[in-house]
Amino acid sequence: MQFELTKEFVERLQQLIGKKSEKEIIQIMDDLHAADIAEIMDVLTLEEAKYLYLQLDGEKASDVLLEIPESDRKRFLKALPPEVIARQFIEFMDSDDAVDVVQDLDEEIQQEVLNEIEDVEHAGDIVDLLEYDEESAGGLMAKELVSVNENWTVATCLKEISNQAEEVDEIYYVYVTDDAGILKGILSLKKLILNNTNAKISNLYNADIKSVTTETHQEEVANIIDKYDLVALPVVDSIGRLKGRITVDDVIDIIREEAEKDYQMVSGITGDVESTDRIWPLTRARIPWLFIGLLGGILGANVLELYEGTLSQIPKIAFFIPLIAAMAGNVGVQSSSIVVQTIASGSKDIQSTSRKLLKEFSVAFITALVFSVLIFIYNYFFSDSLQLTYSVSASLFIVIIFASLFGTFVPLILNRLKIDPALATGPFITTTNDILGLLIYMLIGSFFFNLL
Amino acid sequence: MQFELTKEFVERLQQLIGKKSEKEIIQIMDDLHAADIAEIMDVLTLEEAKYLYLQLDGEKASDVLLEIPESDRKRFLKALPPEVIARQFIEFMDSDDAVDVVQDLDEEIQQEVLNEIEDVEHAGDIVDLLEYDEESAGGLMAKELVSVNENWTVATCLKEISNQAEEVDEIYYVYVTDDAGILKGILSLKKLILNNTNAKISNLYNADIKSVTTETHQEEVANIIDKYDLVALPVVDSIGRLKGRITVDDVIDIIREEAEKDYQMVSGITGDVESTDRIWPLTRARIPWLFIGLLGGILGANVLELYEGTLSQIPKIAFFIPLIAAMAGNVGVQSSSIVVQTIASGSKDIQSTSRKLLKEFSVAFITALVFSVLIFIYNYFFSDSLQLTYSVSASLFIVIIFASLFGTFVPLILNRLKIDPALATGPFITTTNDILGLLIYMLIGSFFFNLL
Repeated sequence: MQFELTKEFVERLQQLIGKKSEKEIIQIMDDLHAADIAEIMDVLTLEEAKYLYLQLDGEKASDVLLEIPESDRKRFLKALPPEVIARQFIEFMDSDDAVDVVQDLDEEIQQEVLNEIEDVEHAGDIVDLLEYDEESAGGLMAKELVSVNENWTVATCLKEISNQAEEVDEIYYVYVTDDAGILKGILSLKKLILNNTNAKISNLYNADIKSVTTETHQEEVANIIDKYDLVALPVVDSIGRLKGRITVDDVIDIIREEAEKDYQMVSGITGDVESTDRIWPLTRARIPWLFIGLLGGILGANVLELYEGTLSQIPKIAFFIPLIAAMAGNVGVQSSSIVVQTIASGSKDIQSTSRKLLKEFSVAFITALVFSVLIFIYNYFFSDSLQLTYSVSASLFIVIIFASLFGTFVPLILNRLKIDPALATGPFITTTNDILGLLIYMLIGSFFFNLL
Repeated sequence: MQFELTKEFVERLQQLIGKKSEKEIIQIMDDLHAADIAEIMDVLTLEEAKYLYLQLDGEKASDVLLEIPESDRKRFLKALPPEVIARQFIEFMDSDDAVDVVQDLDEEIQQEVLNEIEDVEHAGDIVDLLEYDEESAGGLMAKELVSVNENWTVATCLKEISNQAEEVDEIYYVYVTDDAGILKGILSLKKLILNNTNAKISNLYNADIKSVTTETHQEEVANIIDKYDLVALPVVDSIGRLKGRITVDDVIDIIREEAEKDYQMVSGITGDVESTDRIWPLTRARIPWLFIGLLGGILGANVLELYEGTLSQIPKIAFFIPLIAAMAGNVGVQSSSIVVQTIASGSKDIQSTSRKLLKEFSVAFITALVFSVLIFIYNYFFSDSLQLTYSVSASLFIVIIFASLFGTFVPLILNRLKIDPALATGPFITTTNDILGLLIYMLIGSFFFNLL
C-alpha cells in the first residue's frame, strides 16, 4: 500500500517526462502523496522536476511545495510573481504553513503577497502569526481550530462544528472557551457523539488540559507533547485566551531537527547533509570543523616543539602521544555529550552545583584510576622504561580527570549563557583536550625523566 | 498550567511523606499526570518513592508504572505476586502497554500473570501480541481500536462506536473493514458528525490510506508516520485483515530512542545515561569505548616503536603526530555520521555503488587537497625542515582520503550485514583511523627524510 521509490519507477517516469506524456504523468501523480512527489522530484534533474511540478493541480502543488527542501522552495518562489504565490499557493495552505512560506520571502515581496491574498481572514491570520518568534509556540501554531462556547448545548456545538470544520482538515479535539475567549478545556468528539444533544457543554468538557503560551520555546512544546502523549496542544496568550493549536506532526519535525543538530555537532558536520547530496554541500559541511582541528593540530605541534629537547633525548616519550590525545578527546566528548543529552531531554536538574561537581569528580576519578592502572600494568610488563611507565600512568590519570570536568562544565556554562551547549561537543572539545593533554603529558614526562 | 518540578515542591513533599500525611499526599497526586509523578519519584529516595507509590489508586498506579524507567519497573514487579500484577496493573492497561510489561517478566511468571487476568478477551489480546517481534509493527501495536463494517449506515456506526468506545481512550479514526475483516479505509469522526444518519459508510470512507503489516520494522513505521503526518497507523496481516493500530506517541518514543542510540554511539557512551544518574551507571557507560580507545593507543604506541630509529634521528617528526591522528579521527567520524544519518532518515538511495564511490572520492579529494595545501603553506613559512613540510602534507592528503572512504564504507557494509551501522561511528572509527593515520605518516616521513 506504500509507495516505494525504485530505480525502475524513476526511469519509467523519466521516459514519460521525456515524451511529455501529460495524461499518464497526471494519473500517476494523482495517486501519490505530496511527500512522495517531493521525494521523486529530489532525484530528478532540475528540468524534469520543473516539468513534473507544472502538471500538478493547485492544492497538490502547494502540498508538494511544503515538502520540498527549504533551499529549493526559496529558489522556486523567487522566480514567481507575488499574485501567483498568494493565489496558487498561500490560499490553499493552513495558516502555520503559509507563515513558513511567507517568512522565506524577501521583505518587500512579503507585503505584496499578503496584499494579494483574497481571503482577508486568512491574510489576517498570517499577519498575526508573523509577529511571533519562529522558534516560539506562536511561530509554530496554526489558527485553524474548532472552538465552542461552554454555555452551548451539544446540538449547537454540532451545528457550529460543521460550520467551522470546513477550514480544518482533521478534528482531534474541540476547544471550549468562555465568552471572553479564555480557554476552559477540551471536548473529545467521542463525548459529543456519545451524549444527548441537549446536554450542556459545561458539564461535558475536560478542564484538566495542558496548554502553552505563545512565548513558550519550541523545544519545551516538543517536550510537553512528548511527555503527556498529546496529539495537539492549545496555545494561549498571557491572559489565557485561545490563540491557536500545535499538532504533533510539527513536533516530530522539531524533535528530529533538534536531534539531528546535536548529532551533527558531535560529529563535526555543519548543516543538514545526507550521502545523497551533491559533492559541494557535502564538502562544505566538513570544512569548518576540520579547519578547527587543523588549527588545534598546529597548536599541538607548537606544544611539542617546546619539548624538542626532551623528545630528542627520550624519543620513547613520543610513543604514547596518540594514546594520551585520544583518551583526552574521547573522555571529553563523552562528558559533554551526556550533558547535552540531559539538557535536550528536558530533565529538570535540582542538584546544587557543588553536588554536581562532587559527582562528576567521582566519576572522573574512578575512570581515571581504572585506565591509569591498566596502562601501568601494560607498561610494567612490556616497556623497558620505568620513567615512561610512571609518566604515562600519571599523565593519563590527570588528563582523564581534567578532560571529564572540562567536558562537563563547558556545555553547562554555555547553556547558562544561552549558547547552544552542543557547540562544546565534537571537534571543539576533542581539539582543546588534545592540546591540554599533550601539555600535561610532556610536563609530567620531562619531570619523571629528569627525576629518575 | 504545567507542573514544574522545583526544589521547594520536592522538599515539601518529602516533609509530608516524613509525617505520613496520606490525605494531603493523595490530594497533590490527584492533580498530577502520571508522567509528572514518575518524574517526582525519580528524585526521591527509594523509601520515599515506595511510600508515595502505595498511595496511588489502581488506574493511576498502572499509568505511573508505565512511565518509570524500565530497570526500576522490572525490579518493582519482581517483588509482586502474579495475581497482583495481573489484577492491579495489567487489567488497567491498553494491550500494547500490557505486552511491554508482561515481556519484562521472567518466563514462568508471564504464564501465571496471563492466567490471572480476569478479562479473557484482554488476556487473549496480550497473548496474540506477545507473538510478534518487539521491534516490529506487531510488537508495537495495540488491539484497542474502533472498526465498523463498510455496509453499515452512519446510525449503526454511531451505535456501534458507543459500544466499542468504552475500551478506547481517544478515537482519532474509525477503521472501515469488509465482512472478512479486511481493512478498506478510514472514516474521520468529522465525516460521521457532518453526515446524515442514513448515509452508507461505503460512500463516506476514505480508501486512500497508509497501513503497515505486522512484520514492518519499527523504524519504518516511524518514518511512515512522520512522512505522511499521521496520528495513527493501522496494522494489517499478510492478507490485509485489520489487526491493530499504532499511535503517534509510540512513534515519538521510537524516534527519540533511535536518535539517542545513534548519538550515544558517536559520542562513545554505552547505555542511556543522563547527568542526573548515579555515579556507577555514569562510570559504567564510559568504560567500554574508552577501553577500546586504550587498546588503540597501545597499538599506536607499538606502531611508533617500530619507527623508534626515525624518531630519535628526527624528533621533529613527532610534532605532527597529534595533527595527523586528530584529522584522521575527525574525517572518519564525519563520514560515518553522514552515512548513519542518511540511513536513519530512511532516504532511499538509488545510486549505484560505483557512482557512490566516485562521489565520496571526489569529496575526500577536495577536502584532502584543501587541508594539505593549508598545512603546506603553514610549514613552508614556519618550519625549518623541508622534509617535514613534504611529509606532513603528503601524509595528511593520503590520510584524509583514506579516512573518508573508510568512514563511508564501513557503516554501509555493516548495514548490508544487518549490523547497526552506528557501531562504526565514534571511538571505533577514531581509533582505527588514528592507527592507520600514524602508520601512513611514519611510512611517508621515513621515506622523505631518507630521500631528501
